[in-house]
Amino acid sequence: MVDIEPLLRDLVVANRILANENVVDAYGHVSVRNPNNPDRYYLSCSRSPELVQRSDIMEFELDGTPVDGDSRNPYLERFIHGATYELNPDVNAVVHSHAEEVLPFTITSQPLLPVIHSAGLMGPKPPVWDIADRFGDTTLLVVNMDQGRDLAEALVSRRIVLMRGHGFAATGRNLSEVVRVSVMLPRNAKILTTALQFGGLKPLSEGEVALRQDMDPDHKAFYRAWEYWATRAGCADMLD
Amino acid sequence: MVDIEPLLRDLVVANRILANENVVDAYGHVSVRNPNNPDRYYLSCSRSPELVQRSDIMEFELDGTPVDGDSRNPYLERFIHGATYELNPDVNAVVHSHAEEVLPFTITSQPLLPVIHSAGLMGPKPPVWDIADRFGDTTLLVVNMDQGRDLAEALVSRRIVLMRGHGFAATGRNLSEVVRVSVMLPRNAKILTTALQFGGLKPLSEGEVALRQDMDPDHKAFYRAWEYWATRAGCADMLD
Amino acid sequence: MVDIEPLLRDLVVANRILANENVVDAYGHVSVRNPNNPDRYYLSCSRSPELVQRSDIMEFELDGTPVDGDSRNPYLERFIHGATYELNPDVNAVVHSHAEEVLPFTITSQPLLPVIHSAGLMGPKPPVWDIADRFGDTTLLVVNMDQGRDLAEALVSRRIVLMRGHGFAATGRNLSEVVRVSVMLPRNAKILTTALQFGGLKPLSEGEVALRQDMDPDHKAFYRAWEYWATRAGCADMLD
Amino acid sequence: MVDIEPLLRDLVVANRILANENVVDAYGHVSVRNPNNPDRYYLSCSRSPELVQRSDIMEFELDGTPVDGDSRNPYLERFIHGATYELNPDVNAVVHSHAEEVLPFTITSQPLLPVIHSAGLMGPKPPVWDIADRFGDTTLLVVNMDQGRDLAEALVSRRIVLMRGHGFAATGRNLSEVVRVSVMLPRNAKILTTALQFGGLKPLSEGEVALRQDMDPDHKAFYRAWEYWATRAGCADMLD
Repeated sequence: MVDIEPLLRDLVVANRILANENVVDAYGHVSVRNPNNPDRYYLSCSRSPELVQRSDIMEFELDGTPVDGDSRNPYLERFIHGATYELNPDVNAVVHSHAEEVLPFTITSQPLLPVIHSAGLMGPKPPVWDIADRFGDTTLLVVNMDQGRDLAEALVSRRIVLMRGHGFAATGRNLSEVVRVSVMLPRNAKILTTALQFGGLKPLSEGEVALRQDMDPDHKAFYRAWEYWATRAGCADMLD
Repeated sequence: MVDIEPLLRDLVVANRILANENVVDAYGHVSVRNPNNPDRYYLSCSRSPELVQRSDIMEFELDGTPVDGDSRNPYLERFIHGATYELNPDVNAVVHSHAEEVLPFTITSQPLLPVIHSAGLMGPKPPVWDIADRFGDTTLLVVNMDQGRDLAEALVSRRIVLMRGHGFAATGRNLSEVVRVSVMLPRNAKILTTALQFGGLKPLSEGEVALRQDMDPDHKAFYRAWEYWATRAGCADMLD
Repeated sequence: MVDIEPLLRDLVVANRILANENVVDAYGHVSVRNPNNPDRYYLSCSRSPELVQRSDIMEFELDGTPVDGDSRNPYLERFIHGATYELNPDVNAVVHSHAEEVLPFTITSQPLLPVIHSAGLMGPKPPVWDIADRFGDTTLLVVNMDQGRDLAEALVSRRIVLMRGHGFAATGRNLSEVVRVSVMLPRNAKILTTALQFGGLKPLSEGEVALRQDMDPDHKAFYRAWEYWATRAGCADMLD
Repeated sequence: MVDIEPLLRDLVVANRILANENVVDAYGHVSVRNPNNPDRYYLSCSRSPELVQRSDIMEFELDGTPVDGDSRNPYLERFIHGATYELNPDVNAVVHSHAEEVLPFTITSQPLLPVIHSAGLMGPKPPVWDIADRFGDTTLLVVNMDQGRDLAEALVSRRIVLMRGHGFAATGRNLSEVVRVSVMLPRNAKILTTALQFGGLKPLSEGEVALRQDMDPDHKAFYRAWEYWATRAGCADMLD
């Protein structure tokens, strides 16, 4: 049995990093799969990521049922997480975000191409999932497993799926990876937005993207970013 | 009789949230209708929202007359509030803002369409009210009831009206709702501005907008945003 | 004789406001005319506005000579100030700024039109002064009275002149006015930049601009902004 | 022998300034040549610039070998620094940055022209170096001396080279100069990006650029910026 406390502490840090780097705000969330029971995952109760503490973390079955009858108010959209874990066995961490820089690419025909090396991890060209295609008019929220599974299918073998008028979902082999791709995606979007005003756009090549996606998610160079982001988010005392 | 103090404390929090989320700055204001006397409303004296305290709150008749001969310096544009309450019986809170992201849509022919789910509350396509249409050359300030009523007519059955070269006015069924739509409107404007550089824009559908507008303004999911915004604005100790 | 200390305290506050509102950064400066001797003005020694304190204030003759042989290092570009006071008797305060939002309008053929009511004070269409027109290749810095006077001529009867590739100079009847127009000019520039992406631009009318320029610079509504900006800049204890 | 401690303290300050002015973030770095041994340079171990302290500074041979067998984890891309010192004897300080405002100019055909006087130091038209031209598909990181030398050749007689999809490298005759050009380059990029939306662009003339590049890097006017940036970065106590 893996000791779960260091992982849950990292989950709190991930919440704070995503908030501090403007990836999430009042809404958005991050979860991690239970390494001792892959049919369960950890996710905060309904609280904005910047405010999440260890005591806010709940455990859920993949179908979104709180474990042990925990009666706290859960996120309405927790189904994004459970359905993604269900369909993607090697995904161990999930983020859902409304990042402003990404949203224009969810409501237009412009693909969100990877253009900067640090965002190569996002993959070649994330698809846009439109909840209306199968579910018609909704509040756009993903509020049940049917909707969650429809979204999660678009995430098979991918790190990123865009959600029309709503945001994106991201996957990682570990928490550090999903945080990294979630921080870099909006930056890539912002840079691409500016570049599209000019001519002669040169995105990353397929080979470059593949080399970035193949990097070891535990490569020590990535710890530099985690240490930096955590410190900026006021979590220096929660680092190893 | 409703105890008015919790409401006035929330009015102070609303001032601070709007300032901290960059919806208002030196100028702009937020008011709430008196639940014990619908012909009166509460609004700060002339002070920037970030600095407003409980002791700054004044009470006004709908025509803008301070109650009980309160002689403090009131906002010049308080008529926006009184006229809106007069014409819209189910409106209980009003915001006036100069948010920069919204202003381009008040001085051009580009409609400010709802494109992100969290801004659906704004409604399908806010009109632009131009003070010059009826009042000719002015400082653009709304400084009497005639001007206030002309503006307020554009707010009947609407959450938002844009004001040419000036900003916007927003209504809510309660304070939380008017703050939410006022925070989300500039974000929607910013995202739409970027999306308009690309092709194939897909705004929210009429049905999606209606479903967002129909959400219960007291839905518990909205408290998450209020808690977060208030905490960021330094008002954690003023939450329930 | 006017007591000069309250004015110099306000000059320090003006430095801090302009820095905190991103109108000036490492460079840029603000001066005030000596009310007891209109042939002299007060300006900090060479220090970034955010760091300026009462003890940094120097007094200068209009030609840029420090009074009383003060040997501290002065700003290279103080001639902008002296020449403007020399040519414009009713100007009592001057700002020089490199604000980023304004710079694009100094290097292109796009006029910086007033489009938001709070920037009407800037006047109808500020000219762009190009140092190269009379002085050829330079570092673009205004480093003597010849250059200062050439610039100052463009400021006669105006609140704003743009400087090609460099920034702007602004005038006020008092410190509050020059700070206000300097804060509002970049905001107007930013909003106009976005609006120019859309069609059907509607700037302020000539009559609206004139009404804003005619407002009493001591109108009590303006104190609200000064109080707010000063408080945000950490100068609450320097207010009256 | 020059006392090295004041220089290393300035190197720490340079790290903090670049982080605080958003030139570097989790990644990016700054080095200084050893004045007592021009075949060596100082650079932090692998840590984000905002967190760098005196004790993090390592010394390297030009080929990237740590001096005295220092076994701490070095930056993967230190070869950018060594190769630049090797090929450019009058360069004494080097920065590598991923600044967002600059990146669009590295992935399109739009040249990054100098348009504001304070960025004239960057030179007339920085070339874009594409690692793929000689090295094919890579992670885009500069991880050996072959790649470093290929990049450094583009820096001969230049202050700036852009790196496709990655960022830029900058050189200075001293730390203050390389920090200054690195802070100003992104600002110039941002202003140019906006200006390119308008017509009639007027960049700095060749003569103006030459005059700015010829300015004494120790000119006392430049200390004003260093003092300001250092103070903002929390390093006031590390100033002389």
